[in-house]
Amino acid sequence: MPGHSPLINAARLQDTLARYATIGATEAGGVTRLALSDEDREIRDLLSADLTALGLDPRIDDMGSISAVRPGSEDGPPILLGSHLDTVVRGGRYDGALGVLGALEVLRSLDDHGIQTRKPVALVNWTNEEGVRFEPAMTCSGVAAGRLTPEFVYNRTDNAGIRFGDELDRIGYRGTVENRPVPASAYLELHIEQGPVLEAMGVAVAAVGGIVGITWTDVQISGQSDHAGPSPMNLRHDALMAAAEIVLGVEQIALNQDETAVSTVGRIVAKPNVINTIPGDVRFSVDFRHRDPAVLDAEYAELKDLISRVEQKRGVTAAVDRFWVSEPTPFDREVVGSVRKAMADLELGSTEIWSGAGHDAKFLADICPTAMIFVRSRGGLSHCEQEFSTPDDLAAGTEVLMRSVLDLAGIAHEGGVK
Amino acid sequence: MPGHSPLINAARLQDTLARYATIGATEAGGVTRLALSDEDREIRDLLSADLTALGLDPRIDDMGSISAVRPGSEDGPPILLGSHLDTVVRGGRYDGALGVLGALEVLRSLDDHGIQTRKPVALVNWTNEEGVRFEPAMTCSGVAAGRLTPEFVYNRTDNAGIRFGDELDRIGYRGTVENRPVPASAYLELHIEQGPVLEAMGVAVAAVGGIVGITWTDVQISGQSDHAGPSPMNLRHDALMAAAEIVLGVEQIALNQDETAVSTVGRIVAKPNVINTIPGDVRFSVDFRHRDPAVLDAEYAELKDLISRVEQKRGVTAAVDRFWVSEPTPFDREVVGSVRKAMADLELGSTEIWSGAGHDAKFLADICPTAMIFVRSRGGLSHCEQEFSTPDDLAAGTEVLMRSVLDLAGIAHEGGVK
Repeated sequence: MPGHSPLINAARLQDTLARYATIGATEAGGVTRLALSDEDREIRDLLSADLTALGLDPRIDDMGSISAVRPGSEDGPPILLGSHLDTVVRGGRYDGALGVLGALEVLRSLDDHGIQTRKPVALVNWTNEEGVRFEPAMTCSGVAAGRLTPEFVYNRTDNAGIRFGDELDRIGYRGTVENRPVPASAYLELHIEQGPVLEAMGVAVAAVGGIVGITWTDVQISGQSDHAGPSPMNLRHDALMAAAEIVLGVEQIALNQDETAVSTVGRIVAKPNVINTIPGDVRFSVDFRHRDPAVLDAEYAELKDLISRVEQKRGVTAAVDRFWVSEPTPFDREVVGSVRKAMADLELGSTEIWSGAGHDAKFLADICPTAMIFVRSRGGLSHCEQEFSTPDDLAAGTEVLMRSVLDLAGIAHEGGVK
Repeated sequence: MPGHSPLINAARLQDTLARYATIGATEAGGVTRLALSDEDREIRDLLSADLTALGLDPRIDDMGSISAVRPGSEDGPPILLGSHLDTVVRGGRYDGALGVLGALEVLRSLDDHGIQTRKPVALVNWTNEEGVRFEPAMTCSGVAAGRLTPEFVYNRTDNAGIRFGDELDRIGYRGTVENRPVPASAYLELHIEQGPVLEAMGVAVAAVGGIVGITWTDVQISGQSDHAGPSPMNLRHDALMAAAEIVLGVEQIALNQDETAVSTVGRIVAKPNVINTIPGDVRFSVDFRHRDPAVLDAEYAELKDLISRVEQKRGVTAAVDRFWVSEPTPFDREVVGSVRKAMADLELGSTEIWSGAGHDAKFLADICPTAMIFVRSRGGLSHCEQEFSTPDDLAAGTEVLMRSVLDLAGIAHEGGVK
């Protein structure tokens, strides 16, 4: 059956995405659907109804994650497809939703074509991927992968002091541990890219080779705060000038690596932060990302060297705290291979990139063969109301997901009984 | 009479400084004496009593500034000496107080030695020099010089919404316009340096040649805020990297001038200021100071050029607003000459520097021949409880003030009737 004619129904996919986007819709065309909010309950109810309408049995696990299994001709762990339906505040319509509703479209299309897969195929909507209301992010795929305990997650509180566990009860979505969607024989997550690379390359879809490693460092520069007027330049110990030199160095450190290395100073705070006073204290963050942990270590060592040189040169002192490391997560080559084969069959090219951001797939990769599929994001924008991907690109990504599933699950027979 | 033996009484000066420093004293050895506070009333009462004890008649003007004139053998405008008794929050003991209490010591020493000057000699305590409680700074010397109207100042409010005029009434220090301390035939202000230059030079006292010009510019860089992960370095428009490059350029612009040029970026704010997001918007201040307005203009032009280059290079846009200019104020060469002559007589060297910060003398220079005398500040520190100058340095500065006054006012006769 594979070939060029689409297996999925692009119009139905668009209609489904649009219908789900009305829940928590903002005036500017985005969505606010925080985890375990009333909007989250409403969209869970909709998803449950759509799964039931397919003759499937939605299951709720102890963290509220919803899944449903379409049986295969053989028993065993399913090919699991999914992502998340929660969003950030004033986020976009497709971040997360595409992975869940693309999976729903795959289940529907399997029915349309009367395809019986050998392995079961399952859909999952992970609770609280964004971590905006309840930090940290990806809590419930983290529980499924054994990285976090349910108790830890239940006791997370939002800004109003409300516990995750209490909100889960309130919206009626606390299920049982037996309903966890894992083990799975593979996990595939379709997602918008959230970056500008595919647009710059002019391609609609990419296979994702892994999720980069991240290291976060906090740098605090102590100099001497003084009146801006009476302090000659050569007697200053200006913490902001020292910081500016290091900030530019952070950029250069990534530029000195291969072109996939990125570095960011996202946060900077100067004190006393007054126009006519030399800053005596400046604190800033350094974010390095790369797929090779040795590169991350080398970058950190370069940062330390640079900071030492600036301390000496400017008579300031620095406290450097590398407070968080997330190891790189290379995806399973076989699953990535299925995605690449689907892309090739569809003449969508052979682009493979790494994800610079975390996804539920990062934790799933700990426990089963995993990969992702990225769809081009207009302007690279995400986590904002301007987030957009064209209907053609969304359909192309979902078609790649469909064909990857057929490859991974195997086709028992087509056009048979549903 | 001039020669090496001191005319002032250094022990009495120390005692007076210590006594006044008990009013609003902080536990850490500093002073909090905000304008028109109860502490300000208490110190005004003390000053008035000390002036009355000298047989002088304290006069309160419409802004609350206190003055007293010691008659000369001739009529006419006095040689006016003074500064301010208000302080910042947790400020030092000598910032401002030295100029008023040094003037008091001069009046007392004139009496000690039975010196009759030709011109009258007057003392002034200007209200609200610091501008911490009621912005802006130097309001009442500003009114005396015709730069501000009394109504503008009366309607200034503090953080609690209390009007300057109402507080002036409350502490009982609203006087009349007839009691303004000007016109004066000259104005001399003794002050701590508030900077590290004299300490670095190893000298106790300097003549002040003027007050530098200041230009303040606000720079707002607009780039593209994005996820720190999925955005390759070559597709970024990072507002903070652009800002860091300009901030370092601001430093270099001053270093390219003569060694008196200073430049400061005191304030910087990045948005959204989140560790894993490329800053899309960074706003910072630029403070240039120099004695030559042409240098300030050239520095600003260099800044604009630099910003244009960074805009082009990094694909960001900048809004540049030069929102405030304070012209340089060169002091009167004759009055500066009297100070330098006194320093030479006392073998205190011939150091002349410019003030990098504003003082009441800036406004007085508009309406009469003016100069200042600086006393070495330990560590250059001021506006903090660690502010300190040694008793010897304070006495040396006050002795220079005394001898400058004798030169400017002229001695009619010594040892005569008081």
